[in-house]
Amino acid sequence: MNTFRLIGALDIGGTKILAGLIDQQGRLLARRRVETGATGGAEEVVARASATLNELLCEVGADRAALQVIGCSVPGPLDSERGVVIFSPNLGWRNVPFVELLSRQFDVPIIIEDDARCAALGEARMGAARGAQCAVYVTISTGIGSGVVIGGRLYRGAHGCAGEVGHMTLDSKGPMCSCGNRGCFEALASGSAIAARAREAIMRGNETLLARYDPAQLTANEVMQAAAAGDALAKQIIETAGEYIGIGLAAVACAFDPEVIVVGGGAASGNGLLARARETFAARAIPPLDALVSIVPAALGGESALWGAALLVSQGQEVGSV
Amino acid sequence: MNTFRLIGALDIGGTKILAGLIDQQGRLLARRRVETGATGGAEEVVARASATLNELLCEVGADRAALQVIGCSVPGPLDSERGVVIFSPNLGWRNVPFVELLSRQFDVPIIIEDDARCAALGEARMGAARGAQCAVYVTISTGIGSGVVIGGRLYRGAHGCAGEVGHMTLDSKGPMCSCGNRGCFEALASGSAIAARAREAIMRGNETLLARYDPAQLTANEVMQAAAAGDALAKQIIETAGEYIGIGLAAVACAFDPEVIVVGGGAASGNGLLARARETFAARAIPPLDALVSIVPAALGGESALWGAALLVSQGQEVGSV
Repeated sequence: MNTFRLIGALDIGGTKILAGLIDQQGRLLARRRVETGATGGAEEVVARASATLNELLCEVGADRAALQVIGCSVPGPLDSERGVVIFSPNLGWRNVPFVELLSRQFDVPIIIEDDARCAALGEARMGAARGAQCAVYVTISTGIGSGVVIGGRLYRGAHGCAGEVGHMTLDSKGPMCSCGNRGCFEALASGSAIAARAREAIMRGNETLLARYDPAQLTANEVMQAAAAGDALAKQIIETAGEYIGIGLAAVACAFDPEVIVVGGGAASGNGLLARARETFAARAIPPLDALVSIVPAALGGESALWGAALLVSQGQEVGSV
Repeated sequence: MNTFRLIGALDIGGTKILAGLIDQQGRLLARRRVETGATGGAEEVVARASATLNELLCEVGADRAALQVIGCSVPGPLDSERGVVIFSPNLGWRNVPFVELLSRQFDVPIIIEDDARCAALGEARMGAARGAQCAVYVTISTGIGSGVVIGGRLYRGAHGCAGEVGHMTLDSKGPMCSCGNRGCFEALASGSAIAARAREAIMRGNETLLARYDPAQLTANEVMQAAAAGDALAKQIIETAGEYIGIGLAAVACAFDPEVIVVGGGAASGNGLLARARETFAARAIPPLDALVSIVPAALGGESALWGAALLVSQGQEVGSV
């Protein structure tokens, strides 16, 4: 007789798949990380995710009938109602019927949600914003995205696009953004923006440790490393990005007035960006938000979205979904 | 025997008080507009508002016992829980215990809320955003404020400051704002910003119809009139303000993804500002928000906040109030 009732959680990323099994008391019984290996396309990724979940079931001694539901975090934009990933550059996916593919392996309800929203939910329930009724999770990575929690639940907006904070304009005459607008938060403060600014400086012939890299291949990580090694140009670039992060988070605070803004992605990993962002936030955000809204790094490390995926199951009716 | 059960509504503004009586079927039985006459201070304003409500009760043939509750719209910031207006420049009020003062006249529950939030609620229930679950009302007036409706209810944020969209940065190196930050939406697109830009141009000696005004006294209305009369400088200033309104509304759409953004205040009154704002919104907002979020003028004219004040009574537990 099978006494287990388990929630399966999947966090599908461009480079790795994280899978977990959570029991009804919210305990993570088992977790596993495997390479995504996305070259074979969506079916291969889904097969690998399914196999990993099956291995975990085996590991905890449960059979497949114990699995009640699966929650999945996938890089969006996606249509969570239809279960379709509309576009995911990191995975090279367009209009992938993810839920349908995974349903061929598991005959249980399957829920998918955007990775930033999953991370927001994970951090708001279990992490740095634990217990918050109003919280925003902002990920500063290659791009900038966010997830908004209101009344303890995900807020998706009228068309599923709420929290597109990476495309709020911070400098109306600023650099072009991939979205076609100018001076977006993402065009000024993301990993791509950091790399682009360094690239331009190298091309102009500025003196910098970064000159040894191929400008076309340069990453934000290399700029952060050079800054940590004392390179003046790299430090200046990180400083500027940190300031824009602070300005962007101040705009987020003005809009939502959350208890806390959780920052995830590369910027949260202690390279000085977050410290500079906090200083700028304190100087720029309108009182009393400058003092009342805390800016904190994500607390669940690489597992914010995995936990959020598991918690999707408990979301029920979302605030503001129409 | 008194068969009436009435809601009193007050919209207290810097120049006028609007009072109304609404029955339980939501019909406006009577309304009256009187001058605020704020020079005598808060007690005088409250006395005048009370007298006006009493006159309306008389007009509909109801006695004071018919009045069940009073909802009030007051320019904020205010503390709606304590019933205190913290600061209201137009009224010259600081820390006015408004609910306590009005309670001396009426022994019924009294609710107060910020005027932009009241207008948002009025427009979302009865006006241009009627039936919307997610809507933002943005007022472009001397300053820029907003009210956010989520799930059909007012969203106030964790500290009562949600919707401070006038202080989102749109140009990080832009003009100083009264809040101490640079390049806020309000510093670029409000009535004050329009007047300031015109003033600077006059001081620089630019050729314009506006040169006949005392720069120190110049208002946004005069700039709009000069633009309507074909003055090139005034037209340029209005054009620029309209563009910034579009950029600001695009940021609002990115944050909240509402069904509709309702624009009130001077900008909604058909002077070309809103048309330019819509064009810029369409060019700047990230797809699919550029096409999905409608930008519409307020539909209740000067009565958005009065209706909202009456509707506060039906709010009950607000989303996100903690």
